[in-house]
Amino acid sequence: MSKPIEFKGYALTDPTKWTDLKVIEFQPKTFQADDVELTITHCGVCGSDVHTLTQGWGDAKLPLVAGHEIVGLVTRVGDNVKEFKPGDRVGVGAQIGSCLSCRACKDGYENYCLQAISTYNAEYPDGVVTQGGYSTAIRAHQQFVFPIPKEIDSVHAASMLCAGLTVYSPLKTHGCGPGKKVGIVGIGGLGHYAVLWAKAMGAEVYAFTHDDSKVDDIKKMGADHIVNTQKKEFWKDYPQTFDILLSTRDVMGDKMPLGDFLSMLYVHGRFITVGLPDSDDPLPSLHAFDFTSNGCLVGGGHIGSKQECLEMLELARSKGIKPWVEEMPMHDVGKALQNVHDNKVRYRYVLTQDLA
Amino acid sequence: MSKPIEFKGYALTDPTKWTDLKVIEFQPKTFQADDVELTITHCGVCGSDVHTLTQGWGDAKLPLVAGHEIVGLVTRVGDNVKEFKPGDRVGVGAQIGSCLSCRACKDGYENYCLQAISTYNAEYPDGVVTQGGYSTAIRAHQQFVFPIPKEIDSVHAASMLCAGLTVYSPLKTHGCGPGKKVGIVGIGGLGHYAVLWAKAMGAEVYAFTHDDSKVDDIKKMGADHIVNTQKKEFWKDYPQTFDILLSTRDVMGDKMPLGDFLSMLYVHGRFITVGLPDSDDPLPSLHAFDFTSNGCLVGGGHIGSKQECLEMLELARSKGIKPWVEEMPMHDVGKALQNVHDNKVRYRYVLTQDLA
Repeated sequence: MSKPIEFKGYALTDPTKWTDLKVIEFQPKTFQADDVELTITHCGVCGSDVHTLTQGWGDAKLPLVAGHEIVGLVTRVGDNVKEFKPGDRVGVGAQIGSCLSCRACKDGYENYCLQAISTYNAEYPDGVVTQGGYSTAIRAHQQFVFPIPKEIDSVHAASMLCAGLTVYSPLKTHGCGPGKKVGIVGIGGLGHYAVLWAKAMGAEVYAFTHDDSKVDDIKKMGADHIVNTQKKEFWKDYPQTFDILLSTRDVMGDKMPLGDFLSMLYVHGRFITVGLPDSDDPLPSLHAFDFTSNGCLVGGGHIGSKQECLEMLELARSKGIKPWVEEMPMHDVGKALQNVHDNKVRYRYVLTQDLA
Repeated sequence: MSKPIEFKGYALTDPTKWTDLKVIEFQPKTFQADDVELTITHCGVCGSDVHTLTQGWGDAKLPLVAGHEIVGLVTRVGDNVKEFKPGDRVGVGAQIGSCLSCRACKDGYENYCLQAISTYNAEYPDGVVTQGGYSTAIRAHQQFVFPIPKEIDSVHAASMLCAGLTVYSPLKTHGCGPGKKVGIVGIGGLGHYAVLWAKAMGAEVYAFTHDDSKVDDIKKMGADHIVNTQKKEFWKDYPQTFDILLSTRDVMGDKMPLGDFLSMLYVHGRFITVGLPDSDDPLPSLHAFDFTSNGCLVGGGHIGSKQECLEMLELARSKGIKPWVEEMPMHDVGKALQNVHDNKVRYRYVLTQDLA
């Protein structure tokens, strides 16, 4: 009989030291018939982790293990689980549960279930606090476990499961494809995925960045055009041009010229923001007049559904798409977090297991 | 030979007396090969007229004749005009010109042309200031002239051409129809049309109003449900319910709970605002988090296209839909404007000609 799984992880214990995570043991959720347990081999580092650990989205439940771009190997499945078996390589993203009975869940929009459970800093129905992937192991309902195609390396798959899916879902929803002009605003972890996917989906891709040092990278990612947002009134070069503008900015502030971005949308075009700034950082003010020149729309998203995740993985597999990631041992998580915070990452960190 | 047309109208001459309009003569645009000239028999009174005359949208070009819900009889057509002949009963709405050569114009979205010319308080290419329908006659490019079906009375057709079209267009664009739940927010001139159209299009219609005195009327208009927005946290009764929420409010202020309205949208639902508040009255502040529970969208519109106008008129004709309007002689325009301003109109005023 194999050794029982130990649940240990790098946890925030003192909010004043948000990059100084301590190894703790924690209690997993009660194992149930629909659950899959996995030992974690890789976990990406997401901007959400920074927002949570710095308390930018509100108080964290301490001690807290962050991380929600998880790849690992199945160690145990519940009696209802047919899709997975021990030894399978699987992933878990930013969501770990939903009611599975509401209209949204039944329609395949379980990512919009009002009872959605986040992978960390939430509570399972049994009251156990969810703990994320900077850890040895995790348990998740099978609906929130994704099979990883054998052609995709674990280090590449990990950050697809939040960063990749969070941009794939709105690109798909809002019609990204051949004949469409799609602008990606902010080329960080999410933005670089958006460039990769949008290009693979057949769109003409414009990357908006203020950072000249990224231009060569962005060209290699496949963007057809690069727009430097430091150019004065850059939006005036693109009136009524884009079908979709997908913003990954997770800082808004007063300087984000949202109304001017909207002016670049073609009729009924959509500006979709998937970056989630701190709670005290709202969208720039809009007036009803900002919608009149093109009947445009402003919206957002929330990760993606399992169906979309499977489609995304198939897109990556079939087109051989690899994200731009840097590997690091999991004990360097503090350094990775600091660099994400400081916008120094190119373009995603993936931590490799060193606790188990 | 018939007497030449006199161009006279009720004009704003002193911005401090915005309901005290004076009869002036004015210069029409140069008559061109694509133009249609009509003598006006009816003109609706729109909230836009109030915003313009009170300078809420900025300075008005004085003297200014407002009014852009116009029905009349054709008196002259240019050489290129095949669709109309003298004597035809036709309408003109809130737009009187566009470039007709840009992508939007070619795609049938001439209402989103960046060179669109408003029916009043704008300038024709020849430099003449456009003057609206509180007047004897008007000239318009044939693209912005609509044939009125014989089954629709002029007094009913007039306000369809702005109020009606402004709500028909987004209902059509955003998929109003059988199986859809559609909420109409604010039951005034535009809102009452939205209830009539949405019901005729086959949707389940919810009317949102704070005004108990309108409840009986709204039932007669055909709304399936009425939601009193004075009820505390009324939105909690409708989580993830609506496919479309169409807001006709033209006052936002601090009290409009926009984020709570968004919470009532089903996945990828749309909140469309077609009311245009004063320039200093922006949308209530939004945070990216306001989009995450349902991946919803916020947008707007701008009148509608000729194609949509013809569809709307056909809907009204085929289903015998009549708006709720009050007739008034044109010299009572000041009283009508004041009542629109004070929200006393039930539900639209239509002025009948008394100058010609």
